[in-house]
Amino acid sequence: MSWPFAVDDTPDAVVDEEAAVWRPFTHSVRELIDACVQSAVDLDEVRAAQADVDAAVARLNKARMAATLGQAHSPSGRRRPWGNPVIGLRNPIAPPLEVHSDPSGRAECDFHCGAAYEGPPGLVHGGVVSLILDQVLGHAVGATGRPGMTGTLTIVYRKGTPLGDLRIEAQVDRRDDVKTWASARIIGPDGVTAEAEGVFLLPRAIRERLAQAEAEGISLPMPEILE
Amino acid sequence: MSWPFAVDDTPDAVVDEEAAVWRPFTHSVRELIDACVQSAVDLDEVRAAQADVDAAVARLNKARMAATLGQAHSPSGRRRPWGNPVIGLRNPIAPPLEVHSDPSGRAECDFHCGAAYEGPPGLVHGGVVSLILDQVLGHAVGATGRPGMTGTLTIVYRKGTPLGDLRIEAQVDRRDDVKTWASARIIGPDGVTAEAEGVFLLPRAIRERLAQAEAEGISLPMPEILE
Repeated sequence: MSWPFAVDDTPDAVVDEEAAVWRPFTHSVRELIDACVQSAVDLDEVRAAQADVDAAVARLNKARMAATLGQAHSPSGRRRPWGNPVIGLRNPIAPPLEVHSDPSGRAECDFHCGAAYEGPPGLVHGGVVSLILDQVLGHAVGATGRPGMTGTLTIVYRKGTPLGDLRIEAQVDRRDDVKTWASARIIGPDGVTAEAEGVFLLPRAIRERLAQAEAEGISLPMPEILE
Repeated sequence: MSWPFAVDDTPDAVVDEEAAVWRPFTHSVRELIDACVQSAVDLDEVRAAQADVDAAVARLNKARMAATLGQAHSPSGRRRPWGNPVIGLRNPIAPPLEVHSDPSGRAECDFHCGAAYEGPPGLVHGGVVSLILDQVLGHAVGATGRPGMTGTLTIVYRKGTPLGDLRIEAQVDRRDDVKTWASARIIGPDGVTAEAEGVFLLPRAIRERLAQAEAEGISLPMPEILE
């Protein structure tokens, strides 16, 4: 695994141009996912729609990256977690969340979970709840300048999380040299539905690099999230 | 929330016919998601592909269900968790997993996580790991005849879970009247990558219904999973 230390040297104009095409494309695929779980058309219509989808797949697969987006974008990881399944601009699985964080170790986000994230009838799948909590905990931790990989994650489900508009808040509680403890909660229309505590570990590679940079008196660009 | 007690009265032939169309359609959408995070075509090709996707969306949205799949299929929940984001036949977000379980409270599954599930470069997102653990823990619990909703879930990440072919195993450890304790692990090419413990709660509505059925000496059809 290589960690994203390098500064992104892709010109802003190129990143913006790519985003301007991939963002609406991915939005369309999200609409397709929603339609897949919500459509009530007859089966012939589904067959016809499949021909459209297969045509799109054939177009996109004319050329494929040798590595995953996470690997390809590592050098530019600071601002292009495009493949991330919670926040990724280019990942249709992501709702997506647009997380706001600050260096004090707080992160928050208003987001929406539609029918594709359903577990029990009308409720967000408990595992999707944990997926989102894990991601936003990671943002809170990374915002302090010491990003971490999840070591342990504990979720307490207070009540069902209804599909629809939701909010998540996370903050760093304390840290030592290697570990950072953070907590988060998901809030629905009727209050907190689930709470999480996570312990995040600063990978050794980053730890050593930070120590070296400190000794040399230089400042390292650091990705906010490692996942 | 209504719980799926009723026997599915949709004729098998109809369910089979729907599955025969929706399964390959959803597979195509999964390929589209994969292409979305892996394609290296130029931006004009992406724009052209979007027209195809939008055409498919327009077809499917000619008629939409009034409720979600989870709500619509509640009466037939025993065999149609089609909207589930981990196992759903009609949910493109699902890898999908095909979970095998037995009444002793064991569940297992070999599955595959591609690029769309990536967190750190080359690794499965830690939250996706928790999503899958939560789902399969639920199967182990439900296989005993007393399905549960997740109360608490604790994940310990031993090491990164590589993208690719993986395995998950879960089993019920113990239970009382209301709670069931279960544990699970994800296994990669180099051994266990993550472990989970979950406490699952039998919802009161189901508990009361089971007690009533027992008093009346009848047997209730019970869904294996509530999520």
